[in-house]
Amino acid sequence: MQRYRLTIEYNGSGISGWQRQDGSPSVQQYLEEALGRYCDMDRILVEGAGRTDSGVHARGMTAHVDLNRDDDPDRVIGATNHHLESKQITVTAAARVSDDFHARFSCIGRRYLYRILARRTRPALEAGLVWHVPVALDVDAMQDAANLLLGKHDFSSFRSAQCQAASPVKTLDRLDVVAVDDEIHLHVAARSFLHNQVRIFAGTLKTVGEGKWSLNDVQAALDAKDRTKGAITAPPHGLYFMEAVYPDDAG
Amino acid sequence: MQRYRLTIEYNGSGISGWQRQDGSPSVQQYLEEALGRYCDMDRILVEGAGRTDSGVHARGMTAHVDLNRDDDPDRVIGATNHHLESKQITVTAAARVSDDFHARFSCIGRRYLYRILARRTRPALEAGLVWHVPVALDVDAMQDAANLLLGKHDFSSFRSAQCQAASPVKTLDRLDVVAVDDEIHLHVAARSFLHNQVRIFAGTLKTVGEGKWSLNDVQAALDAKDRTKGAITAPPHGLYFMEAVYPDDAG
Repeated sequence: MQRYRLTIEYNGSGISGWQRQDGSPSVQQYLEEALGRYCDMDRILVEGAGRTDSGVHARGMTAHVDLNRDDDPDRVIGATNHHLESKQITVTAAARVSDDFHARFSCIGRRYLYRILARRTRPALEAGLVWHVPVALDVDAMQDAANLLLGKHDFSSFRSAQCQAASPVKTLDRLDVVAVDDEIHLHVAARSFLHNQVRIFAGTLKTVGEGKWSLNDVQAALDAKDRTKGAITAPPHGLYFMEAVYPDDAG
Repeated sequence: MQRYRLTIEYNGSGISGWQRQDGSPSVQQYLEEALGRYCDMDRILVEGAGRTDSGVHARGMTAHVDLNRDDDPDRVIGATNHHLESKQITVTAAARVSDDFHARFSCIGRRYLYRILARRTRPALEAGLVWHVPVALDVDAMQDAANLLLGKHDFSSFRSAQCQAASPVKTLDRLDVVAVDDEIHLHVAARSFLHNQVRIFAGTLKTVGEGKWSLNDVQAALDAKDRTKGAITAPPHGLYFMEAVYPDDAG
């Protein structure tokens, strides 16, 4: 068996998220079926760096898979995409890796983007690709609030009730708020994240941006260590899994 | 009657283009029906700055319309969007204008964007929003070719056989080739354009970018003044009508 690292782009609209589950199509299932057809394998397991929720997109999800052949990575890309039934999913890169590479456990950094469209009228071109917030947002106030969240904290107020992580303590490395035309982009990076953490960051910063929360409110939410004291969870369709980082990656 | 200037964003996928026609839905028809419902008017005419083809998108199409009321522009935006049956179309701005404003005849400049995704694998996130070209393109060579097309020329080799313009002579003010991540963006501006002119520019520059045409080939195509000597017409779904410019616009 040869292990491959795959980079995957997908549009999460109408897909039940990354993880395979009964009754609704997932990115993992589509990939496993495509790879199974390509390699004529009955059982195949694609392990991802993260488990995105239903509706969340990915620019560069990383996964690994063991194949019963040693094909050139270009052939792995072409054959997998050829067999992918969902055109919302594309393998954009592949590389041979050693058997000790694990997309989830070897990963030392994850990067997300959250896109907010802050304008009065709903999007026609970016429908399903941004969170539409129909009011102007104060980007400077959002960045000030974001800075409070940087570093190592107990993020209990920023994880879903379903979060299965053993510890709520995480270290947030980056939370940049950048205005791009009518959009506000949140660039978020950490070694790992709690369930819904980025979406609750986005909901929190939006609440600050529209003037409903002060910096003190954000600090109080962080200090409370209680999800019920936090802000709303932003919708999934503004969220993009951008990149998973591994020890051997250049840069 | 009060005349309004409208700015419209639309996703052209599955729509038969700007112009009203029998049997298939157009942007003009959707807008006229929405405005008709809002104002309870039987006959309503929305005139656009340009007539985009089927599949072409718009970030900022401009149109004018005469309404039987003097509502605040914000109300015109809200009511029109409320009545729009297609969620692919949004009125993003409105302003009262005098009766001598004409979206088409008053327009002194039009700006387009053409998006090429130059990478091997098909887009999952930008499907329908870019022209996917599965090879690397030489951006510098494309810009050199673009520079040959700037200025006043007989663009007979760059207009469709169906073009109804009286003269093939146009003045091209801008044709910039800009690499943006995996994409190549063509920024195009002129007072007015021939039918398919921007799409034939895109097809020409792509042919240069992949090394199949030299600068001499582009010059020869221009000099031939014959569509059959030109390059291919790029597909509609990479094209965006960005902006129409009028004498009173600031800047």
